[in-house]
Amino acid sequence: MIMMQTPLLLSSFVKRAEQYFPEKLIISRTSEDVIHRIPYREFAKRTRKLADALTKLGMRHGTKVGTFAWNHHRHLEAYFGVPSTGAVLHMVNIRLSPEHIAYVINHAEDEILLVDDNLFPHLAQLAPMLKTVKHYVIMGDSKEIPETSLPNVHAYEALLDEASDTFEFPEDLDENTPAGMCYTSATTGNPKGVVYTHRGIVLHSYALGLSDAMGIRERDVAMPLVPMFHVNAWGIPFASVFFGTTQVLAGPGFDPAVILDLIEKEEVTISAGVPTIWLAVLKELEANRRDVSSLRAIVCGGSAAPKGLIRAFEEKYKVPFIIGYGLTETSPLVSLSVLTSKMEDVSMDERIDIRALQGIPIAGLEVQIVNENGAVPWDGETMGELTVKGPWIASEYYKDDRTADAFRDGWLYTGDIAVMTEDGYIKLTDRTADLIKSGGEWISSVDLENALMTHEAVFEAAVIAIPHEKWQERPLACVVLHEGQAANDEMKEALKNSLKEQFASWWLPEDIVFMDELPKTSVGKFLKRALRDQLDSYFKVT
Amino acid sequence: MIMMQTPLLLSSFVKRAEQYFPEKLIISRTSEDVIHRIPYREFAKRTRKLADALTKLGMRHGTKVGTFAWNHHRHLEAYFGVPSTGAVLHMVNIRLSPEHIAYVINHAEDEILLVDDNLFPHLAQLAPMLKTVKHYVIMGDSKEIPETSLPNVHAYEALLDEASDTFEFPEDLDENTPAGMCYTSATTGNPKGVVYTHRGIVLHSYALGLSDAMGIRERDVAMPLVPMFHVNAWGIPFASVFFGTTQVLAGPGFDPAVILDLIEKEEVTISAGVPTIWLAVLKELEANRRDVSSLRAIVCGGSAAPKGLIRAFEEKYKVPFIIGYGLTETSPLVSLSVLTSKMEDVSMDERIDIRALQGIPIAGLEVQIVNENGAVPWDGETMGELTVKGPWIASEYYKDDRTADAFRDGWLYTGDIAVMTEDGYIKLTDRTADLIKSGGEWISSVDLENALMTHEAVFEAAVIAIPHEKWQERPLACVVLHEGQAANDEMKEALKNSLKEQFASWWLPEDIVFMDELPKTSVGKFLKRALRDQLDSYFKVT
Repeated sequence: MIMMQTPLLLSSFVKRAEQYFPEKLIISRTSEDVIHRIPYREFAKRTRKLADALTKLGMRHGTKVGTFAWNHHRHLEAYFGVPSTGAVLHMVNIRLSPEHIAYVINHAEDEILLVDDNLFPHLAQLAPMLKTVKHYVIMGDSKEIPETSLPNVHAYEALLDEASDTFEFPEDLDENTPAGMCYTSATTGNPKGVVYTHRGIVLHSYALGLSDAMGIRERDVAMPLVPMFHVNAWGIPFASVFFGTTQVLAGPGFDPAVILDLIEKEEVTISAGVPTIWLAVLKELEANRRDVSSLRAIVCGGSAAPKGLIRAFEEKYKVPFIIGYGLTETSPLVSLSVLTSKMEDVSMDERIDIRALQGIPIAGLEVQIVNENGAVPWDGETMGELTVKGPWIASEYYKDDRTADAFRDGWLYTGDIAVMTEDGYIKLTDRTADLIKSGGEWISSVDLENALMTHEAVFEAAVIAIPHEKWQERPLACVVLHEGQAANDEMKEALKNSLKEQFASWWLPEDIVFMDELPKTSVGKFLKRALRDQLDSYFKVT
Repeated sequence: MIMMQTPLLLSSFVKRAEQYFPEKLIISRTSEDVIHRIPYREFAKRTRKLADALTKLGMRHGTKVGTFAWNHHRHLEAYFGVPSTGAVLHMVNIRLSPEHIAYVINHAEDEILLVDDNLFPHLAQLAPMLKTVKHYVIMGDSKEIPETSLPNVHAYEALLDEASDTFEFPEDLDENTPAGMCYTSATTGNPKGVVYTHRGIVLHSYALGLSDAMGIRERDVAMPLVPMFHVNAWGIPFASVFFGTTQVLAGPGFDPAVILDLIEKEEVTISAGVPTIWLAVLKELEANRRDVSSLRAIVCGGSAAPKGLIRAFEEKYKVPFIIGYGLTETSPLVSLSVLTSKMEDVSMDERIDIRALQGIPIAGLEVQIVNENGAVPWDGETMGELTVKGPWIASEYYKDDRTADAFRDGWLYTGDIAVMTEDGYIKLTDRTADLIKSGGEWISSVDLENALMTHEAVFEAAVIAIPHEKWQERPLACVVLHEGQAANDEMKEALKNSLKEQFASWWLPEDIVFMDELPKTSVGKFLKRALRDQLDSYFKVT
């Protein structure tokens, strides 16, 4: 070989942080009133201790180790301590239904589970359903284990006390060794598993560090609000260790006030979460002003963000509000609504229009939007299914015959319907499953939702397809109003009128239904399936 | 495989630039009065045409294609058009001696040579010595070939006229396929060849795009002043295509005035070159002020930079002046003297002290300084040889039995002597070959040089070892004074006195020799070997 075949491995991140940034901090909120401040020097030692402790419990190359935990430093230690030995970390989504939690743990064949102390009672109830778990390790500040009838329950801190901080990670792992796995909800049936490799995560971390992407760097203070059990918290904890970035892990039960307090106190420079969180943060910020001037960027993804939200942060608080697009299958970063040089001098309105798009692909990925005629033109109009290819994109679902639906001809078919702007920016218009087909034409539920959410009275809006005898499907809007707004016929009329100005008449919803809240998935996306179930009877086929 | 095995290939850079940044420019100065402005859309077409044209001339997978050229758009087209087909681009250093030029072309077995029109007369003289070259392609604006008795001479632009711009690059190349090669001068004997792979260059390009490294990004205007025949112009042309960055290629015979005109006119944001160039640019800038406020960073490497140079740019012109370290064997970026967050508030003097170091390793590499006791402590004092490991570091010299000297136990032994500061910043003290061993102790020639070059009268200084009967070796200083400074005994005394304040008496040079200029290598480094040859007789063993 003519160049060194140094494998791309997560253990190198730990080594780097320890050597070059030993005093930089992981700020970890483990409960309402406890915040730990762990320097990377200490983190590296604890990570090696964890690897040693779990190896003593029987962890071997390829062993699946599950976590059932919030965002905190122990979870981060598992992010590195488990895969760096050649084992695989399975981050279980704690918000799944009990049946699905049992399914994913059994399907992944987790042998060891690392469980937050405050989540253990919930998980313990499921223990009888778990077929492969041999050990439970309780993550909490206490070295005592909680009262339980389960065998083989250990306290994380007690295990670490007994473990060696000189444990050595193998340097000769193949970079294609599995490192982590997450399951993603399916439209029907059980969740589908996605496995991440060391190579994929390392390349994804480089991508997060690019100036043209998130540009995560040593002098940042990064706070991922997206859970660490959801696509690796978008990869931010990995990248932060790589670059020696201070990170703030917000722990359990954080609310908008906690988030804002952390931003202000820890001088957070970059944070990332779903629109629902940022809507709530904005509401709290408007009610109780804080200093958020340390923020150089907010990254928002997971579902469409209302333009009003983007505008508030961009215009009023001077914080660049960048929309990202990605999936569990894509590690997740696919694209970001960054502004290229030619967009630097556009008006605020144009700027917000660009920010609201899903952006251009990160260097290293290929994206195509395809319909029955192949790749669609970049005209901002022709819809097709978004497909992605690249070195941090999964090529299968773990032991799942639904692989063939999504992975075809070397591309991931995302199930998202989108158009491409003239500049190659992705604009999502719908999920394949959510698309409204009216009289043979497609109507974008997302466009209607965004338009509704720009109305000053509207807090949230979701648009779903309802069966219709003549047109096959018609749109129905479900709207949550801001507090104090009256949900009456005048309001309905006002909203309809505002849509009339923007859309062709056949795009207009058949009706608007006011609701107190919208059902959401475990990661804050509108749960349109539940909405449809709920409203199917409301709108009979006529 | 669980993640896509998308290979890391250079052809993806071309595709990306063409798709997302079709109007961004390559600004290419091909002669004193011609500047081309080529959009990436056109560059991509021409790159495919070049691949098609060379394939028609017989280029196949693994064929070596040489370039003998300055920095310009045609050279950049070769950077991508050749390797993207699976062939290998050999960038011949035009400043080598005729014998060495013939040696490297024969040793690499170049079959096609792409030669600048203004360099062709020089190369044609060597043609009888070249054993493997079948075709010469003349790069210039003319479609006519120059008068020559050589067979198989073609005009680049005429070949492109006949070629197809729909040539398709293979997508299934192995990422470890050789892409490029450069030769590096050896202390004795013929130059040594280093081969770069697609994987190595792609990972190096990600590294250049990191916020914590050069942070090359779409909105930059990058001007590499280091030649494209010297370690890929430090990889900047590759990274610029990847990120859609505007690039300025300064062509043949640029002088400091041309450089400053380009910076001012094209609003260059980042530029890179050796200290000699920046010293000359500074001199011109002081004489004829230009607007250099567009610059966000200057990267300087290749040899030690005087602190006065760093200070002038940092303090007077407010341009961050970042020292880089690297070698032909390292693609080349190993480390950069970037400031970490804890250094943000240091004084200007401390800032310049940090900038003058070789910096911390780029994310993805490992660096150790080793002596006979293993890795040296990070104490800023203990000297050892700098060793490097990582995915863009060569693991051998091309078909050369000197490989065993430099590549051992998975590490590259650089031949550079260095110490590590407490923060893990590399500080070069010498080349193994230049180190002065006086009475069993090591004296750093670089420290003495830097001290001399901070004196206001001194333009350049080199310190070499001279044999000495009692002390084995002693330092001798060779000094070039600024214009108008008198090279007399008073000056000698003044310089000696200034050194006395900073160094132990046994470090002080035995003598100071004033010279009109210092001999330099083809890439602007002091040629200490030549200095020693020149002065060996001056300083007899006594």
